[in-house]
Order: sequence, then structure tokens, then C-alpha cells
Amino acid sequence: MSSRTHVSSSARTQFLEVKGGERYAYRRFGSGPGLPLLLLQHFTGTLDNWDPALTDALAGERELILFDNAGIGHSSGPVPTTVAGMAKHAAAFLDGLGVGTCDVLGFSLGGMVAQHLVLDRPAIFRRLILAGTGPRGGEDIMHLEKPSLAKHLQDPANKGYRVLQKIFFTPTPSGQAAGAAFVERLIERKEDLDGVSGPAVANAQMAAFHDWERVTGERFAELRTIRHPTLVVNGVHDEMIPVVNSYHLVEHLPNAVLLTYPDAGHGSLFQYHDSFARHAAAFLSVSSESAVY
Amino acid sequence: MSSRTHVSSSARTQFLEVKGGERYAYRRFGSGPGLPLLLLQHFTGTLDNWDPALTDALAGERELILFDNAGIGHSSGPVPTTVAGMAKHAAAFLDGLGVGTCDVLGFSLGGMVAQHLVLDRPAIFRRLILAGTGPRGGEDIMHLEKPSLAKHLQDPANKGYRVLQKIFFTPTPSGQAAGAAFVERLIERKEDLDGVSGPAVANAQMAAFHDWERVTGERFAELRTIRHPTLVVNGVHDEMIPVVNSYHLVEHLPNAVLLTYPDAGHGSLFQYHDSFARHAAAFLSVSSESAVY
Repeated sequence: MSSRTHVSSSARTQFLEVKGGERYAYRRFGSGPGLPLLLLQHFTGTLDNWDPALTDALAGERELILFDNAGIGHSSGPVPTTVAGMAKHAAAFLDGLGVGTCDVLGFSLGGMVAQHLVLDRPAIFRRLILAGTGPRGGEDIMHLEKPSLAKHLQDPANKGYRVLQKIFFTPTPSGQAAGAAFVERLIERKEDLDGVSGPAVANAQMAAFHDWERVTGERFAELRTIRHPTLVVNGVHDEMIPVVNSYHLVEHLPNAVLLTYPDAGHGSLFQYHDSFARHAAAFLSVSSESAVY
Repeated sequence: MSSRTHVSSSARTQFLEVKGGERYAYRRFGSGPGLPLLLLQHFTGTLDNWDPALTDALAGERELILFDNAGIGHSSGPVPTTVAGMAKHAAAFLDGLGVGTCDVLGFSLGGMVAQHLVLDRPAIFRRLILAGTGPRGGEDIMHLEKPSLAKHLQDPANKGYRVLQKIFFTPTPSGQAAGAAFVERLIERKEDLDGVSGPAVANAQMAAFHDWERVTGERFAELRTIRHPTLVVNGVHDEMIPVVNSYHLVEHLPNAVLLTYPDAGHGSLFQYHDSFARHAAAFLSVSSESAVY
């Protein structure tokens, strides 16, 4: 295991107010030769939901920018009910920050925002990492009413971050141990917290998922126009956005490598944070036009 | 690109005669801290069909053992018509050589032999790399009569190794350029050649593929008993053993990582030999029980 720098847990929340727009909360830390890496977060997740073990590792070689979309954490405004709306906010944020081109790590809902944004504004990203996510028109995306998920979400014993241990990780002893360790790392941060998302956030984001799941036009056709080098990562037992969605991504994106992890669910990048950070760094360090690393 | 050592092209063919059994042709070269790596070859492939760029790179950190199964190249005996029969020969060869435990890279048919052998003799392998292959009961395995393959196999212009450029690589300019480079590397070897497989080899091996494609018992159940760390690799556009077979492998093997390559077919490990050798070396260098690297 790598030694931790703990730079993530001490990074202060900053704010960027866009003229005529919203006031976005973000955290920016790390340094190195790489382009900045924008991190786009999962369903109901805030700045506090990034695993500090992962962000500490990534921040050793590049600047990270953790971003709260509109209405999330301390960002102002209503939560958009479409991925397109979220992508507009992410673009406004990067423009306001003066970041012309960066790399992006989009996890789950954040991976959908990254796909939408790169279609709108191809030059805004150089390389994409899409973890635990799926394409527009994907399958079985975020059906929280499924018994495999509902039993955890409706269990009153799963308070706070503990529900993530259940729904982001496999039920095996090794999966649950990794989930418990993840929760312990999330609660390392004691001050300058970003708050917890309520039902209004969840409802708006669920509307965005349902819209994203609809097939519009020729299925997956837009993926073929994204020529950016892309690394797709997933756990093979993801119950929230099943791994078949990652298969669709790499079969239709012309320049994408797939990495799947065993005994892992939606949170595979947190379960195997050492490995994921190593693969991400190797992928991001390539200067050619190929996704292959 | 890594600088080449050209150790592969100069490695001499050796022979091992098993008491009461066959006389097997093999090549053994390379050195380093790793366990020996047994290489199990594809349909009709001989010792000469391993990409020297790949084996040169792998041989820098470990000893490689390239093996001709019975009836292939200069190995004696009839070609088995089942994967089980091929696995018996591979076991007899390793036993005769005095190799108690090794790592294995099985490509295509060789990956099936590796799976069968590790089920028979779990202690014989430590770690498995399965490239361009599929599980017993897989889908669309080696249907050479498919138009996408038959048009190349029946084209008289595709003489010798040139057919491999067509069927192992994508039809894109980059895929075909990689295929042409692969063929150039194969013909680097000028002496001590292993010969070319004829129709008798092809017919026996096709029988083995057809038998392997049949579902016997509960589909994929035996995969769950292989707990060995496994790296599964494929091109997303493999026409010979489609990538869905790699998905089945990692969804049922309990301890397997999947890596897929873009713009690549059956020969993805040769197309991206630098990357593949790097990933293989990283995977093989892990000393824990986990496939994650």
C-alpha cells in the first residue's frame, strides 16, 4: 500500500461565482507535470465523497479539481434534472476557473456528465476516465427499487456513509472489509464539511438517470464520435450501473481501454484505490493519441 | 517503444522425450526473478508464431517456455481432438521438464488448454494470463465459415503469415499496419524454423474447439472453482473468439481482471505488444493472492 499524504482531507473548500450564474463549491489541490484532473461525482455525492486515499494518490502527479455541480453541497442553484443541464454547469465552472483543457475522472453520474460535456465541447478534455458509468441508452441504470439495492437503502441500520459500504461493495467478506475501510477514510475529514444531500437532490438526479437511460436516435451512435483516449473502469458485480454498460462503452468508443475488477461493485475505484490510481496515472501520463497504456 | 533484445529469434528449438510418451519441441529462454512462464499457442500456431517483440519483452524478467503440443511443429504424435487431450500433453511436458509450478500465458486455443490444465492440476500454475480465449460453453468460437473470416481464409492472395494480418487484426489502417508489422517480426527468424501446420492439425484442433463450445453441466460453473489470479485480455473486435467470451470469464472466475484493447481483434496482445508486456509483467510481479495489479 502506498503511504498517504493526507492532502485531500485538509484541502479547503473554495467558491467560484459565475457572472449571471451560480456560485460553485470546489476543492483544488495537488501538483505535478500532468494537466489538471476534474473529478465529477456520483449520485448524491458531494466533495466529501471522494475517497481521500484515491485523491491523495492522484494528487501526487497532478492538480485535482473536485467540483460540486449546481445545488450539490455548498453550490447554489437548483439541481438539474438532465445530464445535459449538469454538463452546462461543469462547462461554466471550468470556463470561470480559466481551465481551457483538462483531463476528467467521471464516476457514475459524473461519467455521464463527462460524456455529455465532451460531446458539446470536445476541446475541453484531453483524456477521459469513466468509472462505474454507462452510455446514453444504457441498461438497468440506477434502479434503486431492485431488491438487491432496496434492501440496503431501506434498512434503517445503514445510517450515513454505512449505506455506501453496502451498495458500492460486494457482500463478500473482502468486499465488505474494503467498504468499511472506505467509510473510515471518508470520515477522516472533520472540518469544512460539504453537507449531506437530501431528497430533493436525489429526486432531481434520479430524473436525470431515467432520461439518460432512454435510447434517442441510433443507439450508441454518439459514442463513435468521441475519439478522446478513454479508460473505462468497473467492478464486474456493479448492481447500480451494471458492467454491461462498460462493455457498451468500449465496444462503441473508438479509442477506449476497459479495466474490470473482480469481487467488486460500483465502488471498484475506491475498493482498489492503489491499483486504480496506478492505472489512472499510467493512462494519464501517455502523450500519444491512443488510449492504450 | 522498448528496445528489442532479439533473444527470441535466436533461441534454439529443444526436445524433451517423455518416457512412454511423445517427444516435445520447445524453446526456453530469458531470465529474471519471476517464475517460468509457459506459453500455450493458438490454432495451428507453432513455436514460430509467437511475436518476438512480445517474447523479447517478457523474457527480460523471467524465463519463458514456448511449447509445441503433440503433433504441432516438431513435436511427435497425433494432434488431440479435445482440449482435455492437449492439457494432458502440457502436463506431461511440464512434469518431464521438472517444472513444478509456473505461470502461464494461454492465447486462444492455448487459453482453453490452460483452463483445463489448472482444473486438473491446480498447483501446476500460480497465475494465469488468458488472451483472446473463452470458457467451455462459450459463444461463436472459431466459426471460420463466417463471412467475416471466410473471405480472408479463402483469398488466395493471403499467403503464409499474411492471412494472420487479416484475421488477427482489425481492417482499419492502424489495425492493418500493426498486422503488417507483426508479420515482419515473425519472419525475422530465418533458421531452426518449426514448420507450418497442415490440414490434419487444423481439423483436429477444430474438433477440439467444437467440443469446447458445447455446454456441459451448469454453464461456467467450473470457472468459479479456479481461484488463481487471472488476467484476461482481448481486443474488443475479435472475430475469432469474440470479446463476450472474455466477459464470461471475468464474470465467473472469482479472481480475474479484464483488460480490453480498442481497434483490436484476436491478436491484440501482438498489436499492443509493448502495453501487453507491461501489463503482463505488472500482473505477474504481484505476490499476493489477488489478481488486482
